[in-house]
Amino acid sequence: MKRLCIALCTAAGLFAALPASAQFQKPEDAIKYRKAALTLVGAHFGRLGAMASGKAPFDAKAAAENAEVLNNVAHLPWAGFVAGTDKGETRAKPEIWSEADKFKASATKMQDEIVKLNAAAKTGDLAQLKTAFGATAQTCKACHDNYRKE
Amino acid sequence: MKRLCIALCTAAGLFAALPASAQFQKPEDAIKYRKAALTLVGAHFGRLGAMASGKAPFDAKAAAENAEVLNNVAHLPWAGFVAGTDKGETRAKPEIWSEADKFKASATKMQDEIVKLNAAAKTGDLAQLKTAFGATAQTCKACHDNYRKE
Repeated sequence: MKRLCIALCTAAGLFAALPASAQFQKPEDAIKYRKAALTLVGAHFGRLGAMASGKAPFDAKAAAENAEVLNNVAHLPWAGFVAGTDKGETRAKPEIWSEADKFKASATKMQDEIVKLNAAAKTGDLAQLKTAFGATAQTCKACHDNYRKE
Repeated sequence: MKRLCIALCTAAGLFAALPASAQFQKPEDAIKYRKAALTLVGAHFGRLGAMASGKAPFDAKAAAENAEVLNNVAHLPWAGFVAGTDKGETRAKPEIWSEADKFKASATKMQDEIVKLNAAAKTGDLAQLKTAFGATAQTCKACHDNYRKE
């Protein structure tokens, strides 16, 4: 049954852009994986935010390094949102699966902004980092507001 | 006191190779971060292992993708092993800090083997993948045996 669900979702396009490697033995493995990936996203994004907001001194090298890691991990969490993983140790809302196209678009938008953020961080210009950080933060917030339980 | 410890460890060279971004607000943040990074390492390494051992069909494209992600995340966990993070939700043994140079050498060895594994996966040759996977697995095991509690 689980395989059938995954096959149907794949056919529906939810995971069309995901690599063949997006496979988990158990639903809880998928949940653990996506939470781990989002923990890394949050950690590196948070460091950029500290610099963008002036809470931490601007360090161009550290900003570029964090943005690079962020860009490397931002595409990972989504493979973990497989069918049947709306229960258990997760705050994922059922809309992730009932509005799968919208959810996927939100995730794609976030990744697109992170590509820009990475480019901005590489310039070494704090003003560009701030602008790109703000745009990316909106995509994080939109997805959390719509798809994550309190 | 925590800052002092971190400063001393930095001076001792444990974190000499880490980026300035290796900063955490609280010890539990560092623990959560390193566990998240190791979860991703384990997930992608496990998929390569399934192919190397014949438990999953060999898919050259998936192997290359997994090895690439693995290579991108393999350098991340180590920043989380900051001083004062041997307590709490962790299985880290105190030897990580009392034998800091040996621990760092183990982590470096693992990363070096993953660079080779990534190259092997890119060849599309299963035999090369198997060899490189085996060598990498030994470095995982050595570190777990020496530095992770049961």
